Amino acid sequence: MVILSLPSRAAMDLVGSAAACCTTVSFLPQLIRVWRRKSARDISLTMFLLFSIGIGSGPITAANAVTLALALAILALKLRYDRRASGQ
Amino acid sequence: MVILSLPSRAAMDLVGSAAACCTTVSFLPQLIRVWRRKSARDISLTMFLLFSIGIGSGPITAANAVTLALALAILALKLRYDRRASGQ
Repeated sequence: MVILSLPSRAAMDLVGSAAACCTTVSFLPQLIRVWRRKSARDISLTMFLLFSIGIGSGPITAANAVTLALALAILALKLRYDRRASGQ
Repeated sequence: MVILSLPSRAAMDLVGSAAACCTTVSFLPQLIRVWRRKSARDISLTMFLLFSIGIGSGPITAANAVTLALALAILALKLRYDRRASGQ
């Protein structure tokens, strides 16, 4: 007979934290990519605007604050590089 | 004397839902932009991979399911257009 134990609360918390960490950290490689390529033409301004508004009006947590900062940084770089590209 | 009332539970729920809606819907303009431009060179594969893993291992809600579907669609288009671009 096989007994399947339910995941403990601690294990579920760990998975939840790891999941939240993934979504937060995920914006860092995007920021680095835009910074390195000095281009963000394929990136949607509307996406990062809506996303920032959504995160900014949600509950204030450390993870949300980091996500918001990264999303705003990507947004700022996009505006900068798009303007530079259209000025060429 | 000015009496400031605390926001009602309903009002807070509304703001929370609107915030969640923004972050979910935000991926749609990105998908449309990549689809229209047939290019996703500036988009980070790592971002959408990490984001999808994070959303996918979090709690299963309707909003998360939509976000995951949109993120995976962007990921698929990126792989497709990047391969096409490198094959040229």
